[in-house]
Amino acid sequence: MNANTFGRLLTLTTFGESHGPAMGAVIDGFPAGISVDLDRDIQPHLNRRRPGQSKITTSRSEADKAEILSGVFDGKSLGSPICVVVRNTNARSKDYDPNYYRAGHADRVWEEKFGHRDYRGGGRASGRETVSRVIGGSFARLLLPEEVSVVGFTRQIGTNIAEDIPEALSIDDVDAHASRCPDPEVAARITEDLETCKEEGDSRGGIIEIRIDGLPAGLGDPVFWKMKNSMADAFMSVGAVVGVGLGDAPAAARAAGQQFHTGIAGSGPDAGISPAANGIQGGISNGERIVFRVYFKPASTVGSMAKKGRHDPCIVPRAVPVIEAMAALTLADHFLARRLNV
Amino acid sequence: MNANTFGRLLTLTTFGESHGPAMGAVIDGFPAGISVDLDRDIQPHLNRRRPGQSKITTSRSEADKAEILSGVFDGKSLGSPICVVVRNTNARSKDYDPNYYRAGHADRVWEEKFGHRDYRGGGRASGRETVSRVIGGSFARLLLPEEVSVVGFTRQIGTNIAEDIPEALSIDDVDAHASRCPDPEVAARITEDLETCKEEGDSRGGIIEIRIDGLPAGLGDPVFWKMKNSMADAFMSVGAVVGVGLGDAPAAARAAGQQFHTGIAGSGPDAGISPAANGIQGGISNGERIVFRVYFKPASTVGSMAKKGRHDPCIVPRAVPVIEAMAALTLADHFLARRLNV
Amino acid sequence: MNANTFGRLLTLTTFGESHGPAMGAVIDGFPAGISVDLDRDIQPHLNRRRPGQSKITTSRSEADKAEILSGVFDGKSLGSPICVVVRNTNARSKDYDPNYYRAGHADRVWEEKFGHRDYRGGGRASGRETVSRVIGGSFARLLLPEEVSVVGFTRQIGTNIAEDIPEALSIDDVDAHASRCPDPEVAARITEDLETCKEEGDSRGGIIEIRIDGLPAGLGDPVFWKMKNSMADAFMSVGAVVGVGLGDAPAAARAAGQQFHTGIAGSGPDAGISPAANGIQGGISNGERIVFRVYFKPASTVGSMAKKGRHDPCIVPRAVPVIEAMAALTLADHFLARRLNV
Amino acid sequence: MNANTFGRLLTLTTFGESHGPAMGAVIDGFPAGISVDLDRDIQPHLNRRRPGQSKITTSRSEADKAEILSGVFDGKSLGSPICVVVRNTNARSKDYDPNYYRAGHADRVWEEKFGHRDYRGGGRASGRETVSRVIGGSFARLLLPEEVSVVGFTRQIGTNIAEDIPEALSIDDVDAHASRCPDPEVAARITEDLETCKEEGDSRGGIIEIRIDGLPAGLGDPVFWKMKNSMADAFMSVGAVVGVGLGDAPAAARAAGQQFHTGIAGSGPDAGISPAANGIQGGISNGERIVFRVYFKPASTVGSMAKKGRHDPCIVPRAVPVIEAMAALTLADHFLARRLNV
Repeated sequence: MNANTFGRLLTLTTFGESHGPAMGAVIDGFPAGISVDLDRDIQPHLNRRRPGQSKITTSRSEADKAEILSGVFDGKSLGSPICVVVRNTNARSKDYDPNYYRAGHADRVWEEKFGHRDYRGGGRASGRETVSRVIGGSFARLLLPEEVSVVGFTRQIGTNIAEDIPEALSIDDVDAHASRCPDPEVAARITEDLETCKEEGDSRGGIIEIRIDGLPAGLGDPVFWKMKNSMADAFMSVGAVVGVGLGDAPAAARAAGQQFHTGIAGSGPDAGISPAANGIQGGISNGERIVFRVYFKPASTVGSMAKKGRHDPCIVPRAVPVIEAMAALTLADHFLARRLNV
Repeated sequence: MNANTFGRLLTLTTFGESHGPAMGAVIDGFPAGISVDLDRDIQPHLNRRRPGQSKITTSRSEADKAEILSGVFDGKSLGSPICVVVRNTNARSKDYDPNYYRAGHADRVWEEKFGHRDYRGGGRASGRETVSRVIGGSFARLLLPEEVSVVGFTRQIGTNIAEDIPEALSIDDVDAHASRCPDPEVAARITEDLETCKEEGDSRGGIIEIRIDGLPAGLGDPVFWKMKNSMADAFMSVGAVVGVGLGDAPAAARAAGQQFHTGIAGSGPDAGISPAANGIQGGISNGERIVFRVYFKPASTVGSMAKKGRHDPCIVPRAVPVIEAMAALTLADHFLARRLNV
Repeated sequence: MNANTFGRLLTLTTFGESHGPAMGAVIDGFPAGISVDLDRDIQPHLNRRRPGQSKITTSRSEADKAEILSGVFDGKSLGSPICVVVRNTNARSKDYDPNYYRAGHADRVWEEKFGHRDYRGGGRASGRETVSRVIGGSFARLLLPEEVSVVGFTRQIGTNIAEDIPEALSIDDVDAHASRCPDPEVAARITEDLETCKEEGDSRGGIIEIRIDGLPAGLGDPVFWKMKNSMADAFMSVGAVVGVGLGDAPAAARAAGQQFHTGIAGSGPDAGISPAANGIQGGISNGERIVFRVYFKPASTVGSMAKKGRHDPCIVPRAVPVIEAMAALTLADHFLARRLNV
Repeated sequence: MNANTFGRLLTLTTFGESHGPAMGAVIDGFPAGISVDLDRDIQPHLNRRRPGQSKITTSRSEADKAEILSGVFDGKSLGSPICVVVRNTNARSKDYDPNYYRAGHADRVWEEKFGHRDYRGGGRASGRETVSRVIGGSFARLLLPEEVSVVGFTRQIGTNIAEDIPEALSIDDVDAHASRCPDPEVAARITEDLETCKEEGDSRGGIIEIRIDGLPAGLGDPVFWKMKNSMADAFMSVGAVVGVGLGDAPAAARAAGQQFHTGIAGSGPDAGISPAANGIQGGISNGERIVFRVYFKPASTVGSMAKKGRHDPCIVPRAVPVIEAMAALTLADHFLARRLNV
């Protein structure tokens, strides 16, 4: 059933509970001979996700130092499964009560499903599980051609919406802002809003937008493993995500076809490519920029618990590297799949 | 890689090109001893999807008569794979030109990916592939407990939005309208709009909303096979779908946490259940109604081609049974998975 | 669970009951653009498996004409799933009694497992299921490099053992004998023995040996998808097979290491290649001939039932193309996998 | 592709290289609420496999202490993936030369396949990988009903064959002998033989027989996931295994059908059960004892290397818990699958 494994050819299996000994990732299907350097390739992405980065994130402080247990030798991948673990060190388990179900969390449904649960910090259902995803994604990035870029950013938090995003955008441009919103003015408003939230025990959701550039045409499979649904699957599997759109989906649903579809039919060099497709037609990449929007509901811990606990008032900023990781895993998988149809 | 197979325990494999000999479905993992009647259980759902149902759909006329080739004996499933085929009879292949790429379709990207393509009617990338999904979904429904209902309806087509949907809604209530919009006033406006579209070669997208009622708590897996991402995967794999939301995702992204999260914490009977969760917490059903919204872009065939060809100006109405089928397949799969954790 | 699907990248899903409407195969993961001709590539292998070929096989007469329903267009594969069906025409269902369990067959255990069964001719558990495997194998052969040959032959039937098999052996060489034993003298004794069996209601098992030549080094994966266990899995999944050996396994178990292992260690051109390995080291092909032996128990229908019914006294001759098909499927799958580690 | 994962519902993913930081196992699909005690349930099986147990095994001394990183809380399984690691401590890497291919090992073919290899001690291709399998198997045993027993023993090493094995046999009975041959007389001869081998740099193969008792009828699937081929797959995936037989396969291949098949046909309580089936008919357990024989070739390290290195002259004794582990994993998987057909 493999419910803790993501991917088809490149697979990521995650394990670990928030307050257990360690979080971990097993990456399999990773080709041999790829240069891998923990400090250069993996740890920086974990650092981007790490709690305690700024005043608008949780104060739980985890070093999140990764250790590679297998699959890499002499600085290169072996073709065998790569296991990476991150020890949990700063768990404060006594904050949690086994007989108390937090609202909006998985506490209650886990009990309904499994009978037995690790009530400490959400256990397996904690956002901390995304440590493993970021590890997986950082390996996946090593399989992408250099010209491919995967950059996520905060498009919206609460009612603050960034309209003015530069056409070119790097990870560093985004990370320059604690909110990961690359519109400085909106970023300032978001930071202010989140500081108020923290004081008042309120929380926020928002939208992460992710851009994939440099992709060749022909990635993705036409039926059940389309580029678009494999991405939706990837993104919606992340904790607080409640929606996914290829581009601005609500706008597309309202649009008139003749205005929306402005592509060229026929047989010329651009024939059949549709600008409105956001990079995906019939489930397959068309060589243009791919844009997804990922919708987050407000963080579930509110009120007095939010004030005293160690929680993010909004997980959107720290979720950016997680969404990127899921995109990178999905892309790398499709790149591997492309080798099968030569 | 199994890119034409959907599901983990209950699997649907689809095959067939739009103008090839037949469309088909293989359903595996279907338990033995389940009563199956083609005319009672399968054909009616195919009829709901069939082209030529009303003046607002395509005029391609396919009987879409299903034949069961295996897996059912003496009116009951055998526990072996069930293969069902539907012959293609009304294909008009000469409408299509091998050297012409339709804009917004998969014609061009298929060529990029596979080199060789069936240019007739979109081949495998045709919406006709959903015949196989409806077959699969009709079998999946047989595995759902009687108290579970899966009802989809048209929430919006173009700019016409139904706000007033009855709390109780059956498939028959929905099917009473050609547009499958169960708000009569909006339904009338939609029909009018689509008739105009047909004349003008314009097209529409929209939103299908799907309600799942009667589900017990505890369905779904906490990490990569959450109820929400398995549904998003299912829905986004359908042709023109560009977005999926658990409930109204854009509204959730804007909401303030303290207003959004109104669940009760603690240890009482309802503790931990969140009304704002739309039936899914931590990826697992919480026993409440599940609501998804599925966003469609406008149909891709517009202009002169739309006027002369046999195309739907809006596929949303006919997609309702397809979206229901994908939901039913996903649910049945999770119901089977639940047996593994006794 | 996919229990009716074989393979990882190239998958074969089989369906059909012996006396149901049809047997069928869905081949997925088959690359696009491969030339496919039903009469040239597929039907001949079905004919080699077909009942009623000679006086030493069953008298059930099935034309076993294959029809391609999908995945092939204009003489070439499309990259979409290929479905092929063979209608059942000569079923004599009244020979079977729903309340009678044949000894040594699956009748009784099927009932224990599934509750409901198709008692006619073994239903899904019939050897007729191998029609679908031969279809799959014939497609798999199209993916093998021209220099690869997969030839199976009868090494032993009952106590008649062929010791003198030519070093070079083609399918035609083997098929020249009704027993598929390419040692003419032993072949004659086998035919005589099987004719006596038929008269007396006795049956025989035996050994099929399969040779794979022309394989490059480097096929197979080192742990759970070794070349050797993927082949054992493939062969042991065939009805009456009770054992599989890489080469002569009982002899290897008895051998002294210093005599058995005569390979050259070091770093020269042949270093590390072991002649005793039968072509597989550490689960991976070493570039030499691969030899497997597949052990069959005697056919289960004996006594009066064997005399009156339509049964093979020994299925070994007709199983040769089935074992070859399973080998070809496994090889093609590993060839596809090799593309993933460039 | 999941080539390092074994199983369908209960999955074992293994990782680790012989001289890398650790060996590990991730067990997924393990139901929640099962009592797990590392010292009681897991470590003892690792100890049975551990090197340095007796004078007839390798002198590499590894404590093989297991640590559970996830999936178990408060002495019970959580339903989340269980990761267990064993650190490698006694690796003597300088014994190995990167430019030297050992004959009969995977050194050379790994290089052909992957380009890059961990030459130290065989890397991933080392028998040390079976540490992870024994971990997996020890968890799988916890899922088997109490009345099921899985006991392997040495039937043959080299030319010493035990004919006289007691009808009832426990793990302790077997482990009482360093050779794991429960026939004391033959055990003595084997020990003597292996001591000579060690001195002379010779090696031996042999046969492990495994008995599965207490199984209900109805386990196993009829086509590609038969009990027999899933077991063959499991056993043949172990390093030096070159053959698998359901019972005595060479004897079955020679037998006359009328003598071999002595089951009762008809409809009485035992009808359809065949004593010659070794517990499996049509791929499904029939409720009787299942017996497999697993054939090992002689250990590959012979000659001067065997004299100076730290190698087993025969891995058969230490492989007994490995073969048992693979059987337990396969059985537990089928027990889970049985829940799906209620």
